[in-house]
Amino acid sequence: MQKTLVNQMAEALEALRREKVLAGSVTNTVTMDFVANAQLAAGGAAAMVFMADEAIGLAQVSRAFYINTGTILPCYEETLPQSAAFFHKQAIPWVLDPVGIGMGAIRMPALEAYRAHPPTILRANASEVIALANLWGLDSGQEAGRLLGVESGDSVDQAGAAARALAHHSGGAVMVSGEKDFVTDGESSFEIFGGSPLMEKVTGFGCSLGGVTALYAGVASPLVAACAAAIHYKWAGSQAQNLAKGPASFKVAFLDALDRFEAKNFSDVECKEKER
Amino acid sequence: MQKTLVNQMAEALEALRREKVLAGSVTNTVTMDFVANAQLAAGGAAAMVFMADEAIGLAQVSRAFYINTGTILPCYEETLPQSAAFFHKQAIPWVLDPVGIGMGAIRMPALEAYRAHPPTILRANASEVIALANLWGLDSGQEAGRLLGVESGDSVDQAGAAARALAHHSGGAVMVSGEKDFVTDGESSFEIFGGSPLMEKVTGFGCSLGGVTALYAGVASPLVAACAAAIHYKWAGSQAQNLAKGPASFKVAFLDALDRFEAKNFSDVECKEKER
Amino acid sequence: MQKTLVNQMAEALEALRREKVLAGSVTNTVTMDFVANAQLAAGGAAAMVFMADEAIGLAQVSRAFYINTGTILPCYEETLPQSAAFFHKQAIPWVLDPVGIGMGAIRMPALEAYRAHPPTILRANASEVIALANLWGLDSGQEAGRLLGVESGDSVDQAGAAARALAHHSGGAVMVSGEKDFVTDGESSFEIFGGSPLMEKVTGFGCSLGGVTALYAGVASPLVAACAAAIHYKWAGSQAQNLAKGPASFKVAFLDALDRFEAKNFSDVECKEKER
Repeated sequence: MQKTLVNQMAEALEALRREKVLAGSVTNTVTMDFVANAQLAAGGAAAMVFMADEAIGLAQVSRAFYINTGTILPCYEETLPQSAAFFHKQAIPWVLDPVGIGMGAIRMPALEAYRAHPPTILRANASEVIALANLWGLDSGQEAGRLLGVESGDSVDQAGAAARALAHHSGGAVMVSGEKDFVTDGESSFEIFGGSPLMEKVTGFGCSLGGVTALYAGVASPLVAACAAAIHYKWAGSQAQNLAKGPASFKVAFLDALDRFEAKNFSDVECKEKER
Repeated sequence: MQKTLVNQMAEALEALRREKVLAGSVTNTVTMDFVANAQLAAGGAAAMVFMADEAIGLAQVSRAFYINTGTILPCYEETLPQSAAFFHKQAIPWVLDPVGIGMGAIRMPALEAYRAHPPTILRANASEVIALANLWGLDSGQEAGRLLGVESGDSVDQAGAAARALAHHSGGAVMVSGEKDFVTDGESSFEIFGGSPLMEKVTGFGCSLGGVTALYAGVASPLVAACAAAIHYKWAGSQAQNLAKGPASFKVAFLDALDRFEAKNFSDVECKEKER
Repeated sequence: MQKTLVNQMAEALEALRREKVLAGSVTNTVTMDFVANAQLAAGGAAAMVFMADEAIGLAQVSRAFYINTGTILPCYEETLPQSAAFFHKQAIPWVLDPVGIGMGAIRMPALEAYRAHPPTILRANASEVIALANLWGLDSGQEAGRLLGVESGDSVDQAGAAARALAHHSGGAVMVSGEKDFVTDGESSFEIFGGSPLMEKVTGFGCSLGGVTALYAGVASPLVAACAAAIHYKWAGSQAQNLAKGPASFKVAFLDALDRFEAKNFSDVECKEKER
């Protein structure tokens, strides 16, 4: 891993904790508790809202924002487009997790409209990354991923071209989560290893990683923020793996480890720059 | 316990895990996290939605569905009737947990309308089972249970006649949860023993059992699915009882045990066929 | 601590558990699970709703009620004012946690309208207490607290005058939560010490304390209820501190300790009557 990147991530973590960075969210009701607790354990602050005026009010006191389209409510017809337009206008960094892409009369127009003011960082699984690239008419190198509820049918490697295309389009970064994570800003790309298979047995690891990525996005460039959050998560997952007796004790140990993580631990996780 | 039933439950568990069965839900916001984590720990997959179009979209990729009427939102005026009608039309198995029965301008008409296309499996506490039988004009053998928030005032034995009447009406199965569980398809009935008194000290054991029952309903007949889910829960509850220092450590140990449960453990739980 | 107060708190706890007191809630979706589990672990019962008719129906079977304005939904435009008016008319004790004060087109008019029928107990952090006193035109002795998402920028001591003014206005009690808690009915005031710094690293300690306070408010006077809940929490926090390896294991140990708390433990926590 480059020395510069490690130093930038270390500085981001230090700033995140010193300033107790707040990243507001419009997020999935299933995993709100996990997202908020992950943000607090990582060293930041959390607040969640549903309505458009609340999202805009919250964004004004947030360093970054997180949008997760998992559980759509009627008021999201206003919240999803209006908040993204506001972030764009005010240059507030934001992270998108397009949960449920492929489905829904409110979600799909909103995700389509985000093409015009895309997220600073997209965090998703491989199938969702491919689906979003296809929705935006970018070259994903793949057919649209199948819709399998919230499960991914494609491998991280299959989503590489789509991730690069999305990052080029947005000028930000894309994180594809999976057994290994893939992070790219369209130019530089990294593969990040570690974590635990138990992450698949607990709901909200993806969602809460999105929320923690938003904290880092408040204090670092998109590529540095995405790498830092992914490494922070992989490290805590590996630590928790050793203490877990099953999925629920794994989650407890994971959140404890998020809190325990220090800047020096960025070097403990395998993070390889990837040639095209 | 009959050898056939044990074998059928073992096959259901094996299929549930091999196919990572997805059961979508429209469910209680209080316990969504627990429902999803229980479904994942049991070996399946989870996704939750609120709106009618989302429920119908999700049902199309689900093997079964779960409806819990605990926390009503305005959009449920459409979601509750439209989704059940869709399950009926498409023959998608579904589980109902009529939380809050007795109250509410949206909940009550929906529960009443379910008489025409009843759930494949009803899972509820004794008072709720009696109340639903009464609401549908079936012979419960009891006056309507008192409404005590989400608490049950009646014993499982008192709900036996109502459960049989509901199962006869629906052609499916009914599970009455309590200190012992009672499962019936109107003809055969079983009493299932075990679990822990700590299940009363944690929110969502009933809700999450409904979600896990839906997973089994995706791969087995209603009676087999209801028995399998009830036994899976009683076993995990008994295991966790030995490890718990209180309600929260009990919940952690319970979810770990849901994951650890194997087909052979169906025989560890006392399950007695009940004569009328 | 006065002997009378200790005895009154002990009686309240005994009644809460004997009658398994139900306090319904309209509360924050982020922390609903924690609120409900804290209420169950403390020895009471929990139920949450969103809509006005549901809140009124639930209030009719509740001994007390809890309103938390954290995550506003469109239907709260009716729920927030109508439920408080109903509590007032029926003399149902209720606890308010004005999360997010300062923001939102639905929250602010509702909080303003509560001036006319104020909560039996207000539980909030220092900044929120000051902001509410200012909103109601009472003498807070401070300028309005900054809005920092859900974080408090003011110290508990700075909120003393605002808390007394609010308690005088409402005729109930006010609890200011922080490193130490401050409880007042406008005449008598108490400072309560203990707990753990890890309470800041987990979402929902304030929200769930509000829910537990509502349980006590169902069986005791406002001042006794507020002191009892605050001491119950500080005790459990101190206990959990010794067992925790980080924020998530702390939360588990805390809920276990809420359940383990006994009447005699009211004397274990430092609670000092405060002169003006």
